[in-house]
Amino acid sequence: MSRVYLDYNATAPLRAEARAAMIRAMDLVGNPSSVHAEGRAAKGLIERARGQVAHALGADGADVIFTSGATEAAGLACAGRDLHGAAVEHDAVRAWITPDLPVDPAGHVAVSDPAQSVLQLANSETGVVQDLPQGLAMSDMTQGFGKLPLAFNWSGCEMAVISAHKLGGPKGVGALVVRRGTEVAAQIRGGGQEMGRRSGTENLIGIAGFGAAAEAAARDLAEGVWDRVAEFRKILEKVIAAEAKETIFVGKGGARLPNTLCMLTPGWKGETQVMAMDLAGFAVSSGSACSSGKVRASGTLEAMGIDPEDAACALRVSMGPETTEEDVMRFGEAWLKQWKKHRARAA
Amino acid sequence: MSRVYLDYNATAPLRAEARAAMIRAMDLVGNPSSVHAEGRAAKGLIERARGQVAHALGADGADVIFTSGATEAAGLACAGRDLHGAAVEHDAVRAWITPDLPVDPAGHVAVSDPAQSVLQLANSETGVVQDLPQGLAMSDMTQGFGKLPLAFNWSGCEMAVISAHKLGGPKGVGALVVRRGTEVAAQIRGGGQEMGRRSGTENLIGIAGFGAAAEAAARDLAEGVWDRVAEFRKILEKVIAAEAKETIFVGKGGARLPNTLCMLTPGWKGETQVMAMDLAGFAVSSGSACSSGKVRASGTLEAMGIDPEDAACALRVSMGPETTEEDVMRFGEAWLKQWKKHRARAA
Repeated sequence: MSRVYLDYNATAPLRAEARAAMIRAMDLVGNPSSVHAEGRAAKGLIERARGQVAHALGADGADVIFTSGATEAAGLACAGRDLHGAAVEHDAVRAWITPDLPVDPAGHVAVSDPAQSVLQLANSETGVVQDLPQGLAMSDMTQGFGKLPLAFNWSGCEMAVISAHKLGGPKGVGALVVRRGTEVAAQIRGGGQEMGRRSGTENLIGIAGFGAAAEAAARDLAEGVWDRVAEFRKILEKVIAAEAKETIFVGKGGARLPNTLCMLTPGWKGETQVMAMDLAGFAVSSGSACSSGKVRASGTLEAMGIDPEDAACALRVSMGPETTEEDVMRFGEAWLKQWKKHRARAA
Repeated sequence: MSRVYLDYNATAPLRAEARAAMIRAMDLVGNPSSVHAEGRAAKGLIERARGQVAHALGADGADVIFTSGATEAAGLACAGRDLHGAAVEHDAVRAWITPDLPVDPAGHVAVSDPAQSVLQLANSETGVVQDLPQGLAMSDMTQGFGKLPLAFNWSGCEMAVISAHKLGGPKGVGALVVRRGTEVAAQIRGGGQEMGRRSGTENLIGIAGFGAAAEAAARDLAEGVWDRVAEFRKILEKVIAAEAKETIFVGKGGARLPNTLCMLTPGWKGETQVMAMDLAGFAVSSGSACSSGKVRASGTLEAMGIDPEDAACALRVSMGPETTEEDVMRFGEAWLKQWKKHRARAA
């Protein structure tokens, strides 16, 4: 039986549209900075992709700065700004902020000074969606972009960071998006690409894939693909809750990403669950996949007031546009089988 | 008639091996940081590519830190180290150094304190190759890697930066290579990838292409491909010198990259030549292609003592493994035709 991939929040499979755009881009031989025909063709492809990403995000192309990913973009946005945020932010944001904003048990962050604060649009581990206050300095929109209706130009944020590979583009491409007039101090310096805000020869093939993936993701969103996915989640929650009474669905009841299910089963380590499910043919995750081989309790769940010992027992199931009801039913069945074994061992 | 691409130093066309490796990598769905089978497969691909790059460079895999390109790698190598270098360095290096090392008329740099200095292996505009002193802090090997016999482990350098797209890999991937034990302060921070030295989800597809391209480039080099290219350059120099007596071949007589011809024709602006040759079907360059639309005299040539007005009259022809004798002969003929027109206008 084929494997079932339910770890879209870690990274999504490459969309067919992105793949095709990347393969086409492979035939362009020029450096986008070159003035000859080959250079101009490469430059044109980048500007086309910039427009696609901007359109999908509800931003203007001139305000999109391509980077090597959301991690680089977060540094470019936050370095030297003395910003505050909450412990639920991704490590790439936490590296640059004072993590002192309070988080309530539902996972919501209270922002007192938006102009000096960052706030993620949606959490990668729980799927909890935040209300972004007007005038926010920066929002990490990585997990929300492509899954939630969203217009950067109406968000009231000065800056946002996004990533290609969370919505079916390639890994290693992302962007910082800025409100017109926001000054950005270049971190990667040299040739002056991206209007002097980010140097280095552009990742032509990756950027082409990002553009195509963003366009396809926006189309999926408009067509209601995520409503179907949210239904699958509801089914899965029911199947599990019917037997595993002690399992908690973190963030349930509030606004969540349509594809994310964070289920916490006290006494059964998330890592153990991940490995058991991997052997059974399912790719899921515990905590966020952000560093090689790192196994640790989630900062997000602890920030929500969950006991560290319980936080270590969370499992994240994250679905995508290709996920089927059969995938979800197979997962529920296999998980319950493992859960029963765990119960038998623990008894 | 098809166009002739002679701007390999700006960027090389994607090698067939890189293309194939990238397309294969597109089928891997996992995040290299994930512990499940899909994640481990992605991680395995990155480690395979790391080995390929290291082997081609004569380095050890553990010492290769993948980045978004040589520009990022240069910043990672140089930031906070107070290093010195010459004005012939690439902008991505010059951004981080004091450019006070002397350059002689042949383009050679005198390094007084190697431990506090950077020195490029080869210049992108002239092809001039430097003798790297033992104990050098950092060498930008971007243009030399793949074109010159080279072993990082025997170079005596603490650090080197390299790029994929100069040897037929994709744009947007490079590496910093360090001598074991050299401390590197992460510039892009977050999830802790690349052993904590460079965070961000890895550019899986690009890295796969880099590995395959490096392997293919090393094979080409061993098979003597560049000796053939150097012969073509000799032929082109002869063809041009036979008529355009005033044209100077910069760096001729010293060690140069086998593929690079920097020809300076006083009174005829390089930019004008580039545009004329572009219309005639040839992609060549004036100065280095490092920033969108930037047109300025070369810092390299001025550092060699060439008058700025003359420096603005340089044209760079840079060949690759696929360049043929016919390409070169066609270029020589077309260039002489344009040169005669220029002479007629100037007369």
